[in-house]
Amino acid sequence: VAVNWPQGFAGAGAGCGIKPAGDDLAVLVADVPVAWAGTFTRNAAAAASVHWCRDHLGGRVKAIVCNSGNANACTGAEGEAAVHQVAASAAAALDCEPDAILVASTGTIGIQLPTDLIITALPSLVANVVPAVDDFARAIMTTDTKPKIATAGAGDATIVGVAKGAAMLAPNMATMLAFITTDARVDDLHGALSTAVSLSFDRISVDACESTNDSVFLLAGGQVPVSTKDFIAALTEVCKSLAEQMVRDAEGGSKFVRIEVSGANDEPAAVTLGKAIAASDLWRTAVNGSDPNWGRILSAMGSADRSLDLGKTSISIGAELVFDRGQPCGSLEAARKIMEADDFTVTCVVGTGSGEAEILTSDLSTDYVTLNATGTT
Amino acid sequence: VAVNWPQGFAGAGAGCGIKPAGDDLAVLVADVPVAWAGTFTRNAAAAASVHWCRDHLGGRVKAIVCNSGNANACTGAEGEAAVHQVAASAAAALDCEPDAILVASTGTIGIQLPTDLIITALPSLVANVVPAVDDFARAIMTTDTKPKIATAGAGDATIVGVAKGAAMLAPNMATMLAFITTDARVDDLHGALSTAVSLSFDRISVDACESTNDSVFLLAGGQVPVSTKDFIAALTEVCKSLAEQMVRDAEGGSKFVRIEVSGANDEPAAVTLGKAIAASDLWRTAVNGSDPNWGRILSAMGSADRSLDLGKTSISIGAELVFDRGQPCGSLEAARKIMEADDFTVTCVVGTGSGEAEILTSDLSTDYVTLNATGTT
Repeated sequence: VAVNWPQGFAGAGAGCGIKPAGDDLAVLVADVPVAWAGTFTRNAAAAASVHWCRDHLGGRVKAIVCNSGNANACTGAEGEAAVHQVAASAAAALDCEPDAILVASTGTIGIQLPTDLIITALPSLVANVVPAVDDFARAIMTTDTKPKIATAGAGDATIVGVAKGAAMLAPNMATMLAFITTDARVDDLHGALSTAVSLSFDRISVDACESTNDSVFLLAGGQVPVSTKDFIAALTEVCKSLAEQMVRDAEGGSKFVRIEVSGANDEPAAVTLGKAIAASDLWRTAVNGSDPNWGRILSAMGSADRSLDLGKTSISIGAELVFDRGQPCGSLEAARKIMEADDFTVTCVVGTGSGEAEILTSDLSTDYVTLNATGTT
Repeated sequence: VAVNWPQGFAGAGAGCGIKPAGDDLAVLVADVPVAWAGTFTRNAAAAASVHWCRDHLGGRVKAIVCNSGNANACTGAEGEAAVHQVAASAAAALDCEPDAILVASTGTIGIQLPTDLIITALPSLVANVVPAVDDFARAIMTTDTKPKIATAGAGDATIVGVAKGAAMLAPNMATMLAFITTDARVDDLHGALSTAVSLSFDRISVDACESTNDSVFLLAGGQVPVSTKDFIAALTEVCKSLAEQMVRDAEGGSKFVRIEVSGANDEPAAVTLGKAIAASDLWRTAVNGSDPNWGRILSAMGSADRSLDLGKTSISIGAELVFDRGQPCGSLEAARKIMEADDFTVTCVVGTGSGEAEILTSDLSTDYVTLNATGTT
């Protein structure tokens, strides 16, 4: 089923030559400048496009230009100037101020952005925007194997999100771009986005590498009044779906693992433990080989929380309890069979506290190594 | 050249059947109970042997029993009892108190230690100790491909260290066991070891996974008076050599990378940045493929230090400057050629502070994934 942007938005995608082949330029256009919120990487090596967008928080936005194939990060003054040029070019094509244009980039770090290619392609791209999200969703992909789209209703309003992920996926926002649009009228757009991101994109990890370009945009047309509570719930649903799609399409990943931590003192403690497991190369290689090496789960948690009490800690792989409050137990063979599925859950109970969290991750495969071992030259 | 233990020490290694094949049991015996110091993993899931040794800090030691093939970690009360049994058995064979026996284990987590195999083998092992370190050094290996031995002189005293590494190698001590012996008389053995470890084993990372069994033992016979300064320098030399040998023999590793960070505000800040680079799966895969993707270095540092100033940061791969205070520069092709060597240095200058540190790491290879993807069942 074709998904359309909400009323008031349209998009397009095309190839402009940044990547050797395939689409690499996308635009999302609002009928009129709209309110927006954004969350961005906290990486000190953040891309020029992130600097530009951060500087424009609080304004209104007419369009977002997104390119793949080049991150425009660590590119110095020339990189900052490139963003201005792209924004000015889009503004001219759309008859608005450059300050109403946001820019997002994803791709290789440290290479100057070929702005001429983008500027040449922009006029026809913005002239040919369509209601369907598909072309946009495909044009922002890097090593993603499929487009990532999610929708939800909030009262009478609609939320439509599109994202790209693949690798450099880590907590504090994955290496990812997400473009979320709604026709809703929301009082605290930033607060809503911040809540939704903290429960979704901040709870996935592929390689624990935080990117220089992570950006989540939320654009709200404002035609349809909604309750804040309904809106946050629906927005969180969209963000969680996009986050899960990213992990399921992780670079080189062959398995999807849901890590459920409970019994922690508080929620942040549960998140810390879950992320530690998700960041363990040793556990993730074991997942790759369906090896029920649950000691690597305990070792990862014990390294992240020096006060972890093994006597109050239990671990299950699927329904198989393999470690019960300090004692190994269960059947490794049964656990292996569970891990042979493409998708399984690890449950860690670490005490009797009320803190719980779910973290999503994938396996570490030889394909991940091969995919990332070359490419810059 | 055969290396011998210092005067007053002897060792032996043999196979007792814990591993399917090869040596897996080693003893290091002192002529008389001697002073010792130890540093151990801070992992909350620390092995039973680590608990035992920590409890015996401050005493004197007659012998250390070390097994490979089984970590005896996360094995509950049965695992704790196993350590007592091994210590009692060695004490009986050596005619000393069990409290004068230290125990170290390395191998798979969560499997009960087959103490019967160890207890059966111990009497003949302790009866056949020899001055040469080689058999001991081979018996403690797991996936190590070669024994790790280092020596240094401190005045008239000798220091001899033996270690095992391979993987689960991370800051806060690698997955590693090191047994260091000396005939020196040292006032503050703990202080000397702590200093040496912080400058060596704490500055290497293979997979950023901290182990449950990391232990460094320093046994001092006390016959030869030395200056504290000379002793610490020589001990640090031994520890740095063993640490470097571990990284050069890292599981699946094909390259050795020296990361030199300078210009940080202080030494801990430089260590943090170096470790962040060493922990980046993306940078380590790029090393594997000789891909000069220096953006992954900046991204790792920018994630570890939110206040990193790119305008004051420069990166060189070997002698090739690729990022100069905010600007990409140099030749990626030249950088690639440098990375094609088995061994190269990455230099990061991050400001004008006096903090500097050197961190050692390896690449992330498909072999690492394959080696760690199976094994428990």
